[in-house]
Amino acid sequence: MADFKGKHILTGKQFTREEIERILQVAENFKEELKSRPSLDLTRGQILATLFFEPSTRTRLSFESAMLRLGGSVIGFAEASTSSTAKGESLEDTILTVCQYADVIAMRHPQMGSAEKAAKVSTVPILNGGDGAGQHPTQALLDMLTIKTEKGKIDGMTVSLVGDLKHGRTVHALVELLKHYKVNLIFVAPEELRMPQEITESMKSYSVPTKETDSLSSALKESDVVYMTRVQKERFADPAQYEKLKGAFILTRALVDKAKPGLTIMHPLPRVTEITTDVDSYEGAAYFRQVKNGLYVRMALIALVLGKV
Amino acid sequence: MADFKGKHILTGKQFTREEIERILQVAENFKEELKSRPSLDLTRGQILATLFFEPSTRTRLSFESAMLRLGGSVIGFAEASTSSTAKGESLEDTILTVCQYADVIAMRHPQMGSAEKAAKVSTVPILNGGDGAGQHPTQALLDMLTIKTEKGKIDGMTVSLVGDLKHGRTVHALVELLKHYKVNLIFVAPEELRMPQEITESMKSYSVPTKETDSLSSALKESDVVYMTRVQKERFADPAQYEKLKGAFILTRALVDKAKPGLTIMHPLPRVTEITTDVDSYEGAAYFRQVKNGLYVRMALIALVLGKV
Amino acid sequence: MADFKGKHILTGKQFTREEIERILQVAENFKEELKSRPSLDLTRGQILATLFFEPSTRTRLSFESAMLRLGGSVIGFAEASTSSTAKGESLEDTILTVCQYADVIAMRHPQMGSAEKAAKVSTVPILNGGDGAGQHPTQALLDMLTIKTEKGKIDGMTVSLVGDLKHGRTVHALVELLKHYKVNLIFVAPEELRMPQEITESMKSYSVPTKETDSLSSALKESDVVYMTRVQKERFADPAQYEKLKGAFILTRALVDKAKPGLTIMHPLPRVTEITTDVDSYEGAAYFRQVKNGLYVRMALIALVLGKV
Repeated sequence: MADFKGKHILTGKQFTREEIERILQVAENFKEELKSRPSLDLTRGQILATLFFEPSTRTRLSFESAMLRLGGSVIGFAEASTSSTAKGESLEDTILTVCQYADVIAMRHPQMGSAEKAAKVSTVPILNGGDGAGQHPTQALLDMLTIKTEKGKIDGMTVSLVGDLKHGRTVHALVELLKHYKVNLIFVAPEELRMPQEITESMKSYSVPTKETDSLSSALKESDVVYMTRVQKERFADPAQYEKLKGAFILTRALVDKAKPGLTIMHPLPRVTEITTDVDSYEGAAYFRQVKNGLYVRMALIALVLGKV
Repeated sequence: MADFKGKHILTGKQFTREEIERILQVAENFKEELKSRPSLDLTRGQILATLFFEPSTRTRLSFESAMLRLGGSVIGFAEASTSSTAKGESLEDTILTVCQYADVIAMRHPQMGSAEKAAKVSTVPILNGGDGAGQHPTQALLDMLTIKTEKGKIDGMTVSLVGDLKHGRTVHALVELLKHYKVNLIFVAPEELRMPQEITESMKSYSVPTKETDSLSSALKESDVVYMTRVQKERFADPAQYEKLKGAFILTRALVDKAKPGLTIMHPLPRVTEITTDVDSYEGAAYFRQVKNGLYVRMALIALVLGKV
Repeated sequence: MADFKGKHILTGKQFTREEIERILQVAENFKEELKSRPSLDLTRGQILATLFFEPSTRTRLSFESAMLRLGGSVIGFAEASTSSTAKGESLEDTILTVCQYADVIAMRHPQMGSAEKAAKVSTVPILNGGDGAGQHPTQALLDMLTIKTEKGKIDGMTVSLVGDLKHGRTVHALVELLKHYKVNLIFVAPEELRMPQEITESMKSYSVPTKETDSLSSALKESDVVYMTRVQKERFADPAQYEKLKGAFILTRALVDKAKPGLTIMHPLPRVTEITTDVDSYEGAAYFRQVKNGLYVRMALIALVLGKV
């Protein structure tokens, strides 16, 4: 059985299918156990450090809640301005210091590769909570858990990924996990924000059927799952181009009603305008359940790297 | 008996006299129990989220200490700059997210009506820790507990409310609770900052005798309790007017010595100059005991909405 | 035996040799106990407030981890901008408020004398985590513990203190403790940043042999321990002077290899350039073990002032 004790969780690329399934299974067990009590007693006396060199309330609170629900405690910082980094300390020295205080570290950093840099010196497991344009493996795992629990399985699903596929860290991380499954992928993006070629080619090498389109409505007609992400104005050289396109990547209730029946709707959040609020009451709108799955997946990862499962 | 399980605490207006007394009684029980041990074991494994979209160290630490003294844990943020709000997320989405992590939410927000907005979507109880010029019910309840424990009862008391009665959130919230009791109220304010007419009329409809004056010294001669608040320069159109008036609403030891014997002095804190520090050693100076009562009242509210009493 | 229950820890000057040894001994006991379990159960239900009016992630996380490893809980703030201070509240009022929430307070403040000011009104023990150019006793104690555990003893050691000895709070605090021991001190600094005369004279009055030099390499030839600190550009009236001097106070691996065998290297951290990273793999490089000793010393102080040892 996959053993994670003492391991770092740095990128979606590091996992085999067996390992993904092990993590999802532990997460589902925790979900079940939390039905009868508010928290477990697995990591009593242990400390998680949440080092957020870049603010992300959602991810930080999810990690913290996960550690508390496991029975442990939390220290940390929510933004770099209050950290030693502001005094010119290297990331490596900060990590070597925090290792003396904590049993496991969850970090977010604006620079790509930071988690790996931290892992090189750390004496405790590092959980990458997002590093710039790099990886965000805990998000990808919670997305996998959401597909599994919403649809009952992952194999056989047609999944549309929508929005800024060029820069989107979460979609990049997600397809790295999906490629281990028998899925069909539809990449829905404006020309300017298409999925990078290296990813489409990586999918090919794993024999994952993919197709590209800029029509959300047509993709929805054959999708079991749609994964919405934000299209940011700043990504366009020509603002007029943005104004022209943005409406085409907004999911409305009208669109949902014409989609393939049973559609599951996901979003990494925070959403701004990508999903209109009239979609929220649709039963396949899974984005807040997705948040809860983040809790279970992070509990699983913390427990696994601490050797408590 | 009043049942608060699963309820939101949004405004002082929501309470009946019976409910106020239930909360104060639970708070007094906790005060008694904490004499023999540092904390209780009522909310073990449960999580309070403190969402402070506007900083307020005092209120935040009070809620956090309350949850810890009950045996629970805390997650949260101290200012909006580190929250998803900065990324354009709606208050409703933030609340729907945090509901997935926590069992109860205490929030402070700069905009009036925010707590009610949050309560509309929340799946866990919301405790309003102040929303703009709106309500601040936990402050009002701790003020009630302070009058009760300092004087032994609330009925029969003459209470002077002093300072900026026009904008003062805490005094507005407090009179909403006092109106259920047989009290006499004296509103002590400069002409520009008088208690709003709708409140004086609401008091009339509850048969609460009120009178208005701009003389603090005369009010003190007949008051059992004086509740001081700040008069802020920014509230005056004419700064010269502020300079002329401010001295008239400062409580000094000399004034206290000429007041009705046994006077109890309260202040929601932080104070700047409204009470001179030579008053601190006066035995009726209750403002730091008032802080402690905030702990007991918030413990009571958390335990009640979680159904733990 | 030295009794610390209810005492404030404000300055290195307050300790007798017996008291220093008591603290180090308790710290060593905790270090031993933590080998077999992640935390103790000594302060269950008690609350530490960390009031950081000036950010210091390292010191704050160390105090918080210490309280959690003892079994207690933590509330607090990481910077003054989110505290009531921003609303004009006096330090004394902030402390009188926090006393109502917590059982012990650790504070850092930019102004010298703040810890003493806080202690004057506090009803719970104050632990000074650094106050401006003033004291930083917990740092000094962890430095002592590091010398003791690295060398086996403190008496008989030759200790070089290097860098900005004029302004360096940590070196000033450390010599206040070292003076109770039979040590030889070498003060290594540029002319502009020499150890203040009152300290060199205080050492004389305790019969501690001292000498001054601006040559790091010569000092290293007779040192058992070298304590590096930062030389900050801002301290020099003439920037050219800084550029000329800075290289002379940087510890490199080449220098270490020519030093007295067995040299122990310490640094209060964060380091910027004072010790090159090629020194990190040298077995006498003790600066990250020093961080861990900070945890044990702070655990000892919290437990002692709470009367839990």
